[in-house]
Amino acid sequence: MSENREAPIGVFDSGVGGLTVAREIMRNLPSERIVYFGDTARVPYGSKSRESIIRFSRQIIHFLQEEHVKAIVVACNTASAYALDEVQKDLDIPIIGVVKPGAKVAVKATRNKRIGVIGTKGTIGSNIYADYIHEIDPEITVVGKACPLFVPLVEEGWLKDPVTVEVAERYLQELQEQDVDTLVMGCTHYPLLRSVLRELLGEKVTLVNPAYETAQSLKQLLKEMNLDNPGIKEEEFPYRFYVSDLADQFTAFANSILPYDVSMTKKIDIEKY
Amino acid sequence: MSENREAPIGVFDSGVGGLTVAREIMRNLPSERIVYFGDTARVPYGSKSRESIIRFSRQIIHFLQEEHVKAIVVACNTASAYALDEVQKDLDIPIIGVVKPGAKVAVKATRNKRIGVIGTKGTIGSNIYADYIHEIDPEITVVGKACPLFVPLVEEGWLKDPVTVEVAERYLQELQEQDVDTLVMGCTHYPLLRSVLRELLGEKVTLVNPAYETAQSLKQLLKEMNLDNPGIKEEEFPYRFYVSDLADQFTAFANSILPYDVSMTKKIDIEKY
Repeated sequence: MSENREAPIGVFDSGVGGLTVAREIMRNLPSERIVYFGDTARVPYGSKSRESIIRFSRQIIHFLQEEHVKAIVVACNTASAYALDEVQKDLDIPIIGVVKPGAKVAVKATRNKRIGVIGTKGTIGSNIYADYIHEIDPEITVVGKACPLFVPLVEEGWLKDPVTVEVAERYLQELQEQDVDTLVMGCTHYPLLRSVLRELLGEKVTLVNPAYETAQSLKQLLKEMNLDNPGIKEEEFPYRFYVSDLADQFTAFANSILPYDVSMTKKIDIEKY
Repeated sequence: MSENREAPIGVFDSGVGGLTVAREIMRNLPSERIVYFGDTARVPYGSKSRESIIRFSRQIIHFLQEEHVKAIVVACNTASAYALDEVQKDLDIPIIGVVKPGAKVAVKATRNKRIGVIGTKGTIGSNIYADYIHEIDPEITVVGKACPLFVPLVEEGWLKDPVTVEVAERYLQELQEQDVDTLVMGCTHYPLLRSVLRELLGEKVTLVNPAYETAQSLKQLLKEMNLDNPGIKEEEFPYRFYVSDLADQFTAFANSILPYDVSMTKKIDIEKY
């Protein structure tokens, strides 16, 4: 396996949101190369069927394998929810999603055994966070709430806007009534709304960002499998970005999330994979 | 040509929104069959690139031709804006979009020669409404405004919600300052927000729904080309619905728009076309 240690990590998402996960990997695993793929031609995944998400994920994994990645991170919560178990079977390299690490930390964080989860319709409908949480502790109450307007609000740039506060109040009301003391931000865009969520929920509620936890899980996994990169040459830029649609919006949004210039993003025809 | 008169009309959209156009065709051309295709696997089109929209449209037209349609209606404003000119070249059957009919009626409606257009980022960025309007009357001032939150708000079902009113106020402010007396609802979902728009703009502003105008244009076109259907058998259900992704959401939304049961929607793999 040691020959693979310098290979990149494949990270994929329905679009640009997964860059929040890539960012955590960059911060916490600075010796690793990354190949990022954002499925911007078919974004969003959150309102689409399980069957389509599995097909999309298979195509992307096929592409990443041709890029000779040593491990894959499913940065999208919806794809982690619908496709991870399905695609794992056929793979000979490790693959992790964002849901399991997020669920694990939420279990550690809760004191009153009441956890809230917010995400897309797909993620919440799949019940996957509750399933993972109950595997660890069946006595925990999990309250899920789909928040379909959060992604468009983030993409409109209304991060601290009164409209966003009003929408968030509406979505979170049920979770507050259910007295959750921990909230999983179960969609890659949601950590960008952290300050609105924090203000509404107060300091008593722990906000869990699966992106950070996923980077930690990845670090541990690579070490255990002797797949961690001993170091990359300084002159080399270790990150490559691919998308299925090259709208201007991607680059603008990407540059607002990452401290790197992603203007060199390359478009590929994902339908061929 | 007379052998084609009983063939169906192909209507396509990025998703379910184009059913508002199909509905107008059903109402105004009750003797016509319709094959509807909604690209629900790749919806929305409004934030994607011109290149992708042209590719998607070509695949859908290919599918519709295999269904032996006699004419095609591009019910999606973004696809009409980006792809219509491009795909028209290769076609031997008539094809019309929603933009030209909408622009024509807006020109007739305005009294102060100031027209507002609302739509997706793609439609507004393409400047196509302004181009068509200026072909008819170069002296008209056209003010475009992208309203990316309107579609998710409609899909959330918040049609008369205070949040929707606040978002609409924000988006329409510039158009009101520019004193437009006519507003084109340049996206298939927007007519569902008609009452919010009406309330904010008052009775002085004429709201143009390109869907209705498109049905009228289609009627005239079919008559001129001797392609209008003399009548369909009573026992036959004249409408067929196809999608590229079968999420539950489609059927629910479709049934809220149409007075027909569209539970028999069939999924096809559009990437094969």
